Amino acid sequence: MTVRDRPLLFGGDYNPEQWPEDTWEQDLKQLQAAHINSLTLNVFSWALLQPDEATYDFSLLDKIMALAARYDMTIVLATSTGALPAWMVKKYPDVARTDVNGRHAGFGMRHNACPSSPHFQQLATALVTRLAARYHDAPGLVCWHISNEYGGQCYCDNCAAAFRSWLQAHYADLDAVNKAWNSNFWSHTFHDWTEIDPPMHLTDMIDAGSDKPVLAGAALDYRRFQSDAMLANFKMEKAVIRAVDSTTPITTNLMSTQRDLDYFQWAKEMDVVSWDNYPSFDTPSSETAMKHDLMYGVKQAPFMLMEQTPSQQNWQPYCALKKPGEMRLLSYQALAHGATTIEFFQMKQSRNAIEKFHGAVISHVDAGGAHESRVYKEVQQLGAELAALPTDLRRSKNVAKIGVLFDWPSFWGVEYATGPSRQMDYVQQVHTYYQMVYDAGLDVAMVGQESDWSQLDILIAPVMYIAGQAVSDKLAAFVKNGGTFLTTYMSGIVDDHDNVWLGGYPGSLTGVLGIWNEACDALPPDTTVGVQLADGPAVQGQFLCDIIHPDGAKVLASYQDPSLFYNGAPVLTANRFGQGAAFYVGTQLDEVGLAHLMGQLLDAAGLPAAATRFDGVEITHRVSATERYTFILNVTGAAHTVTNPDPDGVDLLSGTPLPAEVTLAPYGVAILQHTL
Amino acid sequence: MTVRDRPLLFGGDYNPEQWPEDTWEQDLKQLQAAHINSLTLNVFSWALLQPDEATYDFSLLDKIMALAARYDMTIVLATSTGALPAWMVKKYPDVARTDVNGRHAGFGMRHNACPSSPHFQQLATALVTRLAARYHDAPGLVCWHISNEYGGQCYCDNCAAAFRSWLQAHYADLDAVNKAWNSNFWSHTFHDWTEIDPPMHLTDMIDAGSDKPVLAGAALDYRRFQSDAMLANFKMEKAVIRAVDSTTPITTNLMSTQRDLDYFQWAKEMDVVSWDNYPSFDTPSSETAMKHDLMYGVKQAPFMLMEQTPSQQNWQPYCALKKPGEMRLLSYQALAHGATTIEFFQMKQSRNAIEKFHGAVISHVDAGGAHESRVYKEVQQLGAELAALPTDLRRSKNVAKIGVLFDWPSFWGVEYATGPSRQMDYVQQVHTYYQMVYDAGLDVAMVGQESDWSQLDILIAPVMYIAGQAVSDKLAAFVKNGGTFLTTYMSGIVDDHDNVWLGGYPGSLTGVLGIWNEACDALPPDTTVGVQLADGPAVQGQFLCDIIHPDGAKVLASYQDPSLFYNGAPVLTANRFGQGAAFYVGTQLDEVGLAHLMGQLLDAAGLPAAATRFDGVEITHRVSATERYTFILNVTGAAHTVTNPDPDGVDLLSGTPLPAEVTLAPYGVAILQHTL
Amino acid sequence: MTVRDRPLLFGGDYNPEQWPEDTWEQDLKQLQAAHINSLTLNVFSWALLQPDEATYDFSLLDKIMALAARYDMTIVLATSTGALPAWMVKKYPDVARTDVNGRHAGFGMRHNACPSSPHFQQLATALVTRLAARYHDAPGLVCWHISNEYGGQCYCDNCAAAFRSWLQAHYADLDAVNKAWNSNFWSHTFHDWTEIDPPMHLTDMIDAGSDKPVLAGAALDYRRFQSDAMLANFKMEKAVIRAVDSTTPITTNLMSTQRDLDYFQWAKEMDVVSWDNYPSFDTPSSETAMKHDLMYGVKQAPFMLMEQTPSQQNWQPYCALKKPGEMRLLSYQALAHGATTIEFFQMKQSRNAIEKFHGAVISHVDAGGAHESRVYKEVQQLGAELAALPTDLRRSKNVAKIGVLFDWPSFWGVEYATGPSRQMDYVQQVHTYYQMVYDAGLDVAMVGQESDWSQLDILIAPVMYIAGQAVSDKLAAFVKNGGTFLTTYMSGIVDDHDNVWLGGYPGSLTGVLGIWNEACDALPPDTTVGVQLADGPAVQGQFLCDIIHPDGAKVLASYQDPSLFYNGAPVLTANRFGQGAAFYVGTQLDEVGLAHLMGQLLDAAGLPAAATRFDGVEITHRVSATERYTFILNVTGAAHTVTNPDPDGVDLLSGTPLPAEVTLAPYGVAILQHTL
Repeated sequence: MTVRDRPLLFGGDYNPEQWPEDTWEQDLKQLQAAHINSLTLNVFSWALLQPDEATYDFSLLDKIMALAARYDMTIVLATSTGALPAWMVKKYPDVARTDVNGRHAGFGMRHNACPSSPHFQQLATALVTRLAARYHDAPGLVCWHISNEYGGQCYCDNCAAAFRSWLQAHYADLDAVNKAWNSNFWSHTFHDWTEIDPPMHLTDMIDAGSDKPVLAGAALDYRRFQSDAMLANFKMEKAVIRAVDSTTPITTNLMSTQRDLDYFQWAKEMDVVSWDNYPSFDTPSSETAMKHDLMYGVKQAPFMLMEQTPSQQNWQPYCALKKPGEMRLLSYQALAHGATTIEFFQMKQSRNAIEKFHGAVISHVDAGGAHESRVYKEVQQLGAELAALPTDLRRSKNVAKIGVLFDWPSFWGVEYATGPSRQMDYVQQVHTYYQMVYDAGLDVAMVGQESDWSQLDILIAPVMYIAGQAVSDKLAAFVKNGGTFLTTYMSGIVDDHDNVWLGGYPGSLTGVLGIWNEACDALPPDTTVGVQLADGPAVQGQFLCDIIHPDGAKVLASYQDPSLFYNGAPVLTANRFGQGAAFYVGTQLDEVGLAHLMGQLLDAAGLPAAATRFDGVEITHRVSATERYTFILNVTGAAHTVTNPDPDGVDLLSGTPLPAEVTLAPYGVAILQHTL
Repeated sequence: MTVRDRPLLFGGDYNPEQWPEDTWEQDLKQLQAAHINSLTLNVFSWALLQPDEATYDFSLLDKIMALAARYDMTIVLATSTGALPAWMVKKYPDVARTDVNGRHAGFGMRHNACPSSPHFQQLATALVTRLAARYHDAPGLVCWHISNEYGGQCYCDNCAAAFRSWLQAHYADLDAVNKAWNSNFWSHTFHDWTEIDPPMHLTDMIDAGSDKPVLAGAALDYRRFQSDAMLANFKMEKAVIRAVDSTTPITTNLMSTQRDLDYFQWAKEMDVVSWDNYPSFDTPSSETAMKHDLMYGVKQAPFMLMEQTPSQQNWQPYCALKKPGEMRLLSYQALAHGATTIEFFQMKQSRNAIEKFHGAVISHVDAGGAHESRVYKEVQQLGAELAALPTDLRRSKNVAKIGVLFDWPSFWGVEYATGPSRQMDYVQQVHTYYQMVYDAGLDVAMVGQESDWSQLDILIAPVMYIAGQAVSDKLAAFVKNGGTFLTTYMSGIVDDHDNVWLGGYPGSLTGVLGIWNEACDALPPDTTVGVQLADGPAVQGQFLCDIIHPDGAKVLASYQDPSLFYNGAPVLTANRFGQGAAFYVGTQLDEVGLAHLMGQLLDAAGLPAAATRFDGVEITHRVSATERYTFILNVTGAAHTVTNPDPDGVDLLSGTPLPAEVTLAPYGVAILQHTL
Repeated sequence: MTVRDRPLLFGGDYNPEQWPEDTWEQDLKQLQAAHINSLTLNVFSWALLQPDEATYDFSLLDKIMALAARYDMTIVLATSTGALPAWMVKKYPDVARTDVNGRHAGFGMRHNACPSSPHFQQLATALVTRLAARYHDAPGLVCWHISNEYGGQCYCDNCAAAFRSWLQAHYADLDAVNKAWNSNFWSHTFHDWTEIDPPMHLTDMIDAGSDKPVLAGAALDYRRFQSDAMLANFKMEKAVIRAVDSTTPITTNLMSTQRDLDYFQWAKEMDVVSWDNYPSFDTPSSETAMKHDLMYGVKQAPFMLMEQTPSQQNWQPYCALKKPGEMRLLSYQALAHGATTIEFFQMKQSRNAIEKFHGAVISHVDAGGAHESRVYKEVQQLGAELAALPTDLRRSKNVAKIGVLFDWPSFWGVEYATGPSRQMDYVQQVHTYYQMVYDAGLDVAMVGQESDWSQLDILIAPVMYIAGQAVSDKLAAFVKNGGTFLTTYMSGIVDDHDNVWLGGYPGSLTGVLGIWNEACDALPPDTTVGVQLADGPAVQGQFLCDIIHPDGAKVLASYQDPSLFYNGAPVLTANRFGQGAAFYVGTQLDEVGLAHLMGQLLDAAGLPAAATRFDGVEITHRVSATERYTFILNVTGAAHTVTNPDPDGVDLLSGTPLPAEVTLAPYGVAILQHTL
């Protein structure tokens, strides 16, 4: 049985090992009363499961598993390798990490295992072998959850050695490495593999509040290596489980736009993607939507929402409470973008340690049953609603015709680059263009360089800094075959080894774009420049300003600013190429400019505009084999009225069709189901 | 003879070892001319007293002591253990500290001794044994001054071992530690004492510009241990001195609201408290008053003002000169709050090293006698005035009926907590409520959880994060017996081990307060919310917002802000409990709101309001067996007129009664003596 | 043949070792077409020249030298010791540096050689010996360029030992050191040389985001030692070259106002000064002018402009493009201030590594010849212009009568001082007074304490914190003999060992100034005070406020600000002393105040005002044996008209005299030649 055949998982992390046993039954009763049907167990119990190297003790976990089964909970069983026991760090210091400053960690914290440590690998394998053998046929088990929120970096000697091996596997010889990294720069030529160290502070990274490497190509490869090394840890555990359990889906919880891991590579190895959604009180709804779409996009498949908080986070600077209805809205937004489960961190709020102020289904106030908090009741209400949703919803897909490209190597490369602007923030750049589509009221598919783009009519690649020959050719084919493509400043700058394409930016993309870009000017913060749209209003640009020479492309906007020496120069162009069109924008336009550009892309692609632009209400579609679902999500704390986007649909929540004008309460939701 | 029987000590740190001997006589003449009558000697001379392990050389100190005696100076003799000699750090590296980043210090700086170092303990004992033997009956000796400004933290292996011993002494067994710290969180379970390390960066503290520990209970205990370890150093030296000198008072100079040491524990071991007062040009007078009151409060006894600067400090960002009269005003403010001495750092300004721009009685300009600075003359004038004050003043007490509670474990705990707001500043929180009373023109007694509260009618405990069962019971008894109690958001949250009280905040205090608090919302900086006082104006709240459920308490104010989902919810409550009343305030009110709240507290306690609220003039009272002293302190640089608070009193400074309306010059002072 | 006899060098760093050999010819053709006539070679090739300890391989460099010769390039040959090979750091870790935090570096970065490392010294000597032997008579060789941009600091054990030797050479004995540093402060007395360590974090420097030492005298000496140690490295290489080449000038490229090295000491050892000019888009033209003048001043001789970028830098926060004409203007500004060469970093933009976004003559866009960028064409145009300039220009001198004093020990000392203000920025302080003269339209000579001041009528010494007896006597003689002198707050404070002069500031200068200063008040940022000029308008002061007592001097301005307790006190004074006058200003005046002060200095010195004050057009003079050159430099992006400063002169660029009113295009330049 796969996760998808079950009732929608509604539950999350439960850590009874932090509590006296005589409180467990009361917890389970409260959880069951809130319609919780699934528990994620054993996330951080290694020190309990294995009190010393020679001893394994599953007695407590046995009790917990039995308890969960007794209350008919499905179980997401974690492997507990996400945090090391103290004895292990004391006995085998190499299991801990060395940071970018060369400091080796002692015991503590959480993300603390070196991916290249032989002891870690042996001990994790030994533990998971026992876990898998013992629990692979446990009642209720629906999913394996390996480790937890992989991430971070290690720079120890074991990693250095493993990095050298990784390089040997990826390059013909040392000369190829020197060439790829331009090592002759600043006398960095390597004559022996052992001369190569991780690029860190005290070796090749500038140490003045920045993380800028000298050999950027080496730093980029180190990122690739570390992502691969942790993925190898995941695959190692997965193989152990698969040896005894060939069917239960295996996942690990991801963190969407985090920097460290190339999730497109990871998703290939995961049976199902899961992730943890922690928006702050001021996170735009478009950013949360983008993160969901990225988690869908890395595997082009629905995903588990593994964690969200019922109310507060504790680790943000100012931990605002979620407002009444807000958690429910965020849960439906997750479903709208492809979530197949709604799970929380956590079931019961800790009494002590760093997360004690993090929200939970059973909060401090609810604990013991003396009070019932608003938050608890909202969880309970949501649980009832979710149980009534059709299973088909979890089989529906994102069928957006507009793609936005996300690329971890570009993320790493452009932020490692010294110049042209310190303000470069890759995720925010991608979000700027995601939001352009979102604000137009349209669905987005997040894709990678290697993704299948066949469902797309429009592909937007913001700050696609790295453009190797393969993706350049793929893009040319996309446009030639009728696709509409948009890219921006700081795109197509380098090949896969961070070597700049020569002869005019954006090197490998100049042909399809019909331009070449002579230079990129950086603006100080809070400076804007005037831009005149050829068939639209005067708008503003900021951040960076390219100086573009059309070479076949049509000019759609020019700088209009006497303070610029390139006043009058083109800044937005479109090029017919084969059956399609390729747009280039040389500055970061303001909202009006981006809205105009979005209109031009739709025109070029022959796609209709949405009936309504985003104005506090997100409208998102999903399509299954037989149904179309239209989510109407009021993402604000005020009532909003929108034109009914599908008057023939039936609202899954109220069970009726909706009027021509739909009024949603604050954080209100409707889901129109329409049989195709 | 005790310090209190002597003429009021007027003097401070003198470091002739930094100067050629032929300049000493000139110094002493200038000091005597300024009415200086006391010298603090030998503060940092270990390297001179003991040039190598085998050699002690007291010849220079003998000369200095003789010089002081020749000029009839009383002597506060320091033990010189506040800074280590270079040879000692080279020979025994363990005497130096390891910082929170795990870096072991070399020689240098000042706060540089590891409290757990066996070598430091042996060598300090050996030195002080010789010092005490040699000088315990020296002419003029009135006080021993151990070390200097204890503080800081050490994280070395010796401290780690000592921490484990401390834990063994405080907990039944390792299981009790695991339970107290909730160590099963993130697989932190300890199976052997040796697995426990100090919580530091690279072990269990987050290292991103913050000091947030994972196991907050462990970090809290480490704070307690370090405070105890340094206190053990103090007690070690004290015991050595007491072996040969059973009477001379022994002190060390404290720093009021500093973070590192729990001065309530320290004061128990000190014969007399002394402290160093260094307000900045923009420190509110209420903050200085609070710091004095805290130094009185830790021992509930008068204290020595051991250091202040005659003019500039050197280590503040912008070292403003004290204005004419300002140093005098600050000296009288110290007396008003319980100082029995007025001492300076320092007698003669250094020519070189880090403090060379720190003010002194003999400044660079005064040195040698070529010029006489304004500052020198102000010291001289003050010296003459102080000599004329009655000795009885030094026997007077703080008899305030309103207490404000300060608690180092809460200070540590609430700042170690991750969430709900990054803006938490414990000292500023306490100051907010101290200032509420100060602005109302009323005296305050600063007290601790273990203090004697019997003189209090009103007790205010701001952000009393830690509320163990004992203090909770004590508070209930205080209210039951007629006391008026106020506490705030983030109070009563955890027990002594940082474990949250379950079933509704503020756990152990809900009964006496007659409320339970469901949640605490954090506001971003510069955000305020509307609050409507039930019988007063609309005011503003900020920082945190509790959502309170009355359970017997009366609602005195509610949120009045349509942007809040808890609009209309109570935010200020009062509960009759036994003979008394318990107030709770769930947000940080603005000045008007606090003034209103203060009025309600006075009403509840049946105390009269002050004749005049603070408006540039502080009025503070002290009472001896026979006299009441009313200090009238113009803390501003402009003239101010106030109603005479004691028309029957006689001004000690002018020798006459004062008119009904008293006009004070800028920084002007009057002290009304009134025989009871 | 000396550099000066050659055609003006127009070229710069060329790193063909980063490129395939088959691209070199194309590069040289493009460079030659841009009138490039000189290449700086071999700057960072140590790892190629010496692939392991036993092997030297000059084959690639031979080819590059031959290529350069084939295209008639003059060659500035670097020694390649500016960056270490990886193998060397691995084999001899002592060649790398230890940072101020005590962390020893691994391989990477650039400024990475410890100056005290015996292995570095041996290996650098061995390399340079071979280089000099092989290439000392290479065709085209015009200059040796040792290492590259010396700077930084090392704190390793070898440096600690070398520091002790340096101290032994500079002090009679350890007691003299203790006395000089006031080591009895905080028990710092040293009893053995081995007790002295470099002042660093974890030893004697405060580690809270600041670099404030306890023993400031020790830190000052460590700065002197490090500057000397790197200078010894330079001299070591120079000696090796001189052994086989007695004539070719030897330089290293400096960085003007950088902090680390005392260039007045360095210039004594350099045949010719060269430097790298990297203004940011918002650097005032006066600051660039000051930096040039300082590079002239350290040797009182013309210098090579070794590096500038044709367009963008890459390492600034916001890398703006140089505007059309701006690079040309900056090149002529360099000539105006004494440059004899115009060289660029670099000839061809790197494809990869940290400088890949740094501008170059052959940019990414120009590479291969597909496009010709605006920047390339501007270089080409400038090359043609420069080739036509008379050789005599390079023999001309700075004949300014107004000197501004720059002093590295004061730079170090005043920034190491704790107090009175955190805002102290030595370079910006000097620039304030440089700009005062610059804005008045007058030429400046930057001088040091040991410079020849004989050409000066006015000498301005801002924040001359260190004033030993020698310079104090020299200044007195300067004024006595008719000179006009101005100094400021925080001047004359300490002697050469950082010991404050006693008896009134500014100690050793009170006599010549006819004042004594009682105290220095620090203002918070954004605070100003009123100042009334005795014969001028009311202006503002900021930063610091001295309280001055005239002792013979005339008061030229007083505080006029009721908020100050020293309201009415003098703040600007002038003292007749011998034949001259000595001015003192006790606060940082605003622009109007400084302009007024400048007028008073000119009056006192009997010098005429300039015909025009600076208003977007810099007018700078140079004089050779037979000619006077007047540079008219429009430093702005807008057209400006100025009165012709030399109607009889002939413009070198247009070949004609200019009209009475000269209009310059944006960034326009004229150079009037006038035969004397």
